[in-house]
Amino acid sequence: MATYLEQLETPVPIVDLDRLSFNLDRMAAYATLHGLQLRPHVKTHKSPRIAAEQLRLGAVGLTCATLREAEVMSEVCDDLLVAYPPVGAARLERLARLSPDVRVSVAADDAQTLDALNVAARLGRRQFDVLVEVDLGMHRVGVSSPERAIAIARQVERASALQFAGILFYPGHIRDAVEAQAAALGQLSADIAQYVGALTDAGLPPRVVSGGSTPAAWRMHEVPGVTEVRPGTYVYNDRTTARIGACDWDDCALTILATVVSTAVKGQAVIDAGTKALGREPLRAEGDGYGALLDHPEVVVARMSEEHGILDLTQTAWRPRLGDQVRVVPNHVCIAVHNFDEIIGVRGHAVETRWPVAARGRGPAIDELSEGPSRPRAV
Amino acid sequence: MATYLEQLETPVPIVDLDRLSFNLDRMAAYATLHGLQLRPHVKTHKSPRIAAEQLRLGAVGLTCATLREAEVMSEVCDDLLVAYPPVGAARLERLARLSPDVRVSVAADDAQTLDALNVAARLGRRQFDVLVEVDLGMHRVGVSSPERAIAIARQVERASALQFAGILFYPGHIRDAVEAQAAALGQLSADIAQYVGALTDAGLPPRVVSGGSTPAAWRMHEVPGVTEVRPGTYVYNDRTTARIGACDWDDCALTILATVVSTAVKGQAVIDAGTKALGREPLRAEGDGYGALLDHPEVVVARMSEEHGILDLTQTAWRPRLGDQVRVVPNHVCIAVHNFDEIIGVRGHAVETRWPVAARGRGPAIDELSEGPSRPRAV
Repeated sequence: MATYLEQLETPVPIVDLDRLSFNLDRMAAYATLHGLQLRPHVKTHKSPRIAAEQLRLGAVGLTCATLREAEVMSEVCDDLLVAYPPVGAARLERLARLSPDVRVSVAADDAQTLDALNVAARLGRRQFDVLVEVDLGMHRVGVSSPERAIAIARQVERASALQFAGILFYPGHIRDAVEAQAAALGQLSADIAQYVGALTDAGLPPRVVSGGSTPAAWRMHEVPGVTEVRPGTYVYNDRTTARIGACDWDDCALTILATVVSTAVKGQAVIDAGTKALGREPLRAEGDGYGALLDHPEVVVARMSEEHGILDLTQTAWRPRLGDQVRVVPNHVCIAVHNFDEIIGVRGHAVETRWPVAARGRGPAIDELSEGPSRPRAV
Repeated sequence: MATYLEQLETPVPIVDLDRLSFNLDRMAAYATLHGLQLRPHVKTHKSPRIAAEQLRLGAVGLTCATLREAEVMSEVCDDLLVAYPPVGAARLERLARLSPDVRVSVAADDAQTLDALNVAARLGRRQFDVLVEVDLGMHRVGVSSPERAIAIARQVERASALQFAGILFYPGHIRDAVEAQAAALGQLSADIAQYVGALTDAGLPPRVVSGGSTPAAWRMHEVPGVTEVRPGTYVYNDRTTARIGACDWDDCALTILATVVSTAVKGQAVIDAGTKALGREPLRAEGDGYGALLDHPEVVVARMSEEHGILDLTQTAWRPRLGDQVRVVPNHVCIAVHNFDEIIGVRGHAVETRWPVAARGRGPAIDELSEGPSRPRAV
């Protein structure tokens, strides 16, 4: 028996499967056309089903941030990049315990970290490829000079269970208007040439030069030397991606299905998607709201509580009725998905499937801790 | 074998059990002292274990927003208020199917909704108490005049499976400085007197007058007519609660334990708690950041990515090392908790227990939908 959108309990994330398929195809085609290797970041979907489709379409492997993501994705992929500093005993232990059938690359920006990573690799009887993370403008993590990159690469080469594979950067700062991008891409190209040149002169030519979040990914063929892109958001896209011109509004494949639960206060309608569904991610300016309706982009979620979203009706002739369903394009889809345990796949109004957001969560924090008595002493 | 904080994988929410116990006791004592009924909102902790302790300390029942919360809490409590508009077939069905042993009250601000609620009650062979939600300044949901409240209360009384129990308001707008609160409380008292008077004159005296989020709860004894308070945040408190003066910094019982994963960029340190751990909840002004360190409140999480939090070190002499653990007091604890599946209970540095955030999530959106084939057509 078919199920339709109207029967779904809200709030719930809905994926237009045709649009998802189109988005997956387009990025795969872009990478193929320009000879770039595609290693999608799974943080956006956290779904092994979508990851498997990315691999079927030619992705060389997957990018993960958390160890939960890496463990879940090791079920469908034998080539994982953990693009996160391998700091902390628990993280190192989980890295070492990943399936021996999986080739694992790790990003690092610190020499001290590499000693611990090498020990973990040896205890796990495995090897890690290491990508030296370089800071090319995001100012989050990463070394800030070719000299530091060379020093770290040399230390990698000295470590018995590590191999230097190349450099990695995250161009998350390149997401603005086209002109700003052009200037930023020029700077990026110069920086990469400098790093690659210095490493090559030092006898450490990088095999991999990995970059490219969704907005910048589409321009990475203009940056000489880049071999790999790691976009995440492109599978679903979102209001931010559309606003900065990196996708069309109709390319937004994921929406939060919500129900109008109150029209008691004039000039607004209240939906059941609030901060615990959409997240409180800003767009650009104050007043831009936290999401907009797929079918009425002029209607924004202007305010939120945890379980309430306030639709501003002052800019629209559309008048919702109590009980109406709406589809909200979130500002930042990765955050919205992280609020749910499953996504619903639809074609038109028909529900076709549901997939767990399997890599959500972080796995048991302390395996060795028993569940304890059914009630602890006092609270 | 004891487990200590240092052995935990990060990021993870840590609850100081002694501080939690103190917070629970204090609100229970306040309510008892002033003859107010305490019906804590479970949205903050979503934990049946903590809810059971609230009831043991004298709470008359619990407040829920989602049906998942109500279902989970019905295991430990026989008197639930669902303080959320009962709109939508799925929500009504789950309301009707709550355990018959549980007395259920529902908030409503719309007449049309009541017809459906009455049908659901009859199909579920049960009765619902109804609290008419009134808008006393929050401008989110709720009727805006005593006349509307009377009309809705009359409709409740006509419905065979509903009883009018009283009125409910959410004073979420009262959270500012003490002086502003005093003025707001005066207005609130006048408004409540007006609603109670009008309903009483209409032969519908409210048995329950329910209000009071955490910041305002401590002042509700100053508002004549209020019979019940529904604070949620007080169990843990957070940076916002401390900032507005409704708790002390040391009253913050929940922190996000995080690890310093990069010190590569000067003037900052990067921890592994970002938006997917803390949420992006603003404090007051730009630059206030998204959380602060329990032991170094001058150090704020100034910027975030999904899995990165950037600690601003420009206002402190403290210098973290790679691998150091820190404890972050989030700006809004309800949102931070919602990002995790369990909380860890600690005393000092010793891990004592862990509890599932059992009412997190929303339950199966579509029970009747099969899991489908292992791979759907296309995508």
